[in-house]
Amino acid sequence: MTATSSSSALPQGQHPEGVGETRTRWFTFGDQADPFVFRTGETLSSVTLAYEQYGELNEKRDNAILLFHALSGSQHAAGYNPAIEGVGNLWTEEMHTGWWDAFIGPGRALDTNRYCILCVNYIGGCYGSSGPVSIHPDTGKPFGREFPTVMIGDIVDSQMRLLDHLGIQTLHAVVGGSLGGLCAVNLAVQYPDRVQTVIPIASGAAVSILQRITNYEQICAIEEDKHFNGGHYYEGPRPDRGLALARMISHKTFVSLEMLELRARQEVIRPEEDKDKWYWLSHPVESYLRNQGLKFVKRFDANTYLRIMDAWQRFDLLKETGKATLAEVFDACRDQRYLIFSIDSDVCFHPELQDEQCHALRKAGVTFHHITVHSEKGHDSFLLEPDLFVPHLDYALNKG
Amino acid sequence: MTATSSSSALPQGQHPEGVGETRTRWFTFGDQADPFVFRTGETLSSVTLAYEQYGELNEKRDNAILLFHALSGSQHAAGYNPAIEGVGNLWTEEMHTGWWDAFIGPGRALDTNRYCILCVNYIGGCYGSSGPVSIHPDTGKPFGREFPTVMIGDIVDSQMRLLDHLGIQTLHAVVGGSLGGLCAVNLAVQYPDRVQTVIPIASGAAVSILQRITNYEQICAIEEDKHFNGGHYYEGPRPDRGLALARMISHKTFVSLEMLELRARQEVIRPEEDKDKWYWLSHPVESYLRNQGLKFVKRFDANTYLRIMDAWQRFDLLKETGKATLAEVFDACRDQRYLIFSIDSDVCFHPELQDEQCHALRKAGVTFHHITVHSEKGHDSFLLEPDLFVPHLDYALNKG
Repeated sequence: MTATSSSSALPQGQHPEGVGETRTRWFTFGDQADPFVFRTGETLSSVTLAYEQYGELNEKRDNAILLFHALSGSQHAAGYNPAIEGVGNLWTEEMHTGWWDAFIGPGRALDTNRYCILCVNYIGGCYGSSGPVSIHPDTGKPFGREFPTVMIGDIVDSQMRLLDHLGIQTLHAVVGGSLGGLCAVNLAVQYPDRVQTVIPIASGAAVSILQRITNYEQICAIEEDKHFNGGHYYEGPRPDRGLALARMISHKTFVSLEMLELRARQEVIRPEEDKDKWYWLSHPVESYLRNQGLKFVKRFDANTYLRIMDAWQRFDLLKETGKATLAEVFDACRDQRYLIFSIDSDVCFHPELQDEQCHALRKAGVTFHHITVHSEKGHDSFLLEPDLFVPHLDYALNKG
Repeated sequence: MTATSSSSALPQGQHPEGVGETRTRWFTFGDQADPFVFRTGETLSSVTLAYEQYGELNEKRDNAILLFHALSGSQHAAGYNPAIEGVGNLWTEEMHTGWWDAFIGPGRALDTNRYCILCVNYIGGCYGSSGPVSIHPDTGKPFGREFPTVMIGDIVDSQMRLLDHLGIQTLHAVVGGSLGGLCAVNLAVQYPDRVQTVIPIASGAAVSILQRITNYEQICAIEEDKHFNGGHYYEGPRPDRGLALARMISHKTFVSLEMLELRARQEVIRPEEDKDKWYWLSHPVESYLRNQGLKFVKRFDANTYLRIMDAWQRFDLLKETGKATLAEVFDACRDQRYLIFSIDSDVCFHPELQDEQCHALRKAGVTFHHITVHSEKGHDSFLLEPDLFVPHLDYALNKG
């Protein structure tokens, strides 16, 4: 069967055509003598990465695809995984089916018959990789505020250590949507010899002013929460109100306004958490967003959210490479080829960001294809509408 | 001199061409037997409105222009007013010059030689009108949370009481920008016989989904502040952090992103208030917005902010009039004439909102002119660029 037809089935982990039940694996590296050094100079003597693998490495170890997850995603991209050791209650039911299940499996666009697909929870994450909730060896308590500052380059570097460990010199491809696309491009420019095909989806090569503002609002919302306590909240109530507000602020950029209205339907459901509020919810869209926010805090850690927001704010390929222009940045990437996806209704990573990226690739003489998909769903289309992406993904990965 | 040329001067209250020094006046109405009844059925036995007047009423009392201020504006629209009794520290220096000074005065678009211009702090406000900070007669303490719910119709109705008091049966015109435009239109459809010319600027006749969301985010930001205490905070620390975040969220919709970047310049100034924050400001635009937020809380009350956000969320001309469509709503307005302004870069009241309004006016057979001004400044253009508005205002008010 073709990837296109498989994608028309509903994402369903247990589906016989998918990868079936999966489990998270662990990779730990570093020691006192050889710690992991972050961009800021901070160090961790031991780093654990939680990852999943679909398909097997071939003998030459040249058939790996590294997939970067988005802001609030996880290593669990495909199949069904009901529990992750150490993650506890954050692994809610909505996480059990992989976030890109329809894209990954035998005969699918990321074809597990041909490729070994790896997806890693980023460093600083809350789904098993070392992060603020991990235990600080010096105190026996969670790192909280003391966890090092994470930059996109740190996420990439830590995952390169896993590739080294698995003996993977060159990736067949690196793929990422949204914030994952920033990671994919960072890898491509930092390690130009270690990847052939680069596929950023609904992403970019820079941070727009509106993104900076929206991210900063979310940072403030969390930091102002009365339970945040500077990041040290693991022994008391969690900063759920602030994190829920942050999620509301971002959610409206992930889903088109038309979709929000449709999803909100006609119901105004006042959450139990709001019973003492002065403001009385007056419109279904408020109710929908509020409940999205409150649902999110059940599955995510506020310190991790802050870390990844901070990494996004600091994303800067010019600083990373010491080059003066994006065209110069991509100058090292002439042996790579790119497939860039835009979503026309995306108000999180506006199509202008991909246009800029393509402009730089063109100037640098890098081979690329730029595809705009037309969707009414907005940024999250890349998670919701496999039919719009699978044919070109399939072609670029398997036939190009 | 013409209004156009006077508008090219910098707004300056003390300017000899302007209205000079002004003072706020007071109007109090109602008693136990005849209280002011809000839309919700709540009552106040005594309501005070703070207002300013520029120019004099003629003998027929038919030369009045009622000007509605915007969300965080005040009754002080023109001239110079260094202090308002009872308002205290909230009357900061940035408020001393009227917010539409370049538009109002002898020979200006709102010509005080011909017209009597009235501007009233809305009920629920914090610049002298009855509001949450006013003293509750039963408790001797500020109303706080107990102040009645305010709707746009209540703002309009309370100001009609002032017009009655002044003997004004029919207004020459009603004018309002932004939220003030919602008030202007509400007055026009509720009291069709009492106004001739209606001028909403960068406003609309409905609430868009994005406005609802942005408003709701701000409401949450204030309600989540640890000092908010359900609205009873006057005896302790104020919910400044939440109000500052709310202002940041709205500010990005008032000023175009290009302007934000320009204004932010190259400085990252970390406010003293943020010295214990985990997040380290990393970009001038964050710093600019943060400082805008912190500056705003010095001059505004959080409960008033919530009241007016709530009024905006509840604005609904169909409910107000019991009609099925906006065209039916404006059916009563055929003897009025409208001047509708759009700002092309407005992301607070998107031009689509004015298009909808004009569509309804056309269907209802109401005379209107619709002017789009082209600005790089965004929504706040109507406060910043008199040259773009004055010629048409002047024509509609004085020559049409």
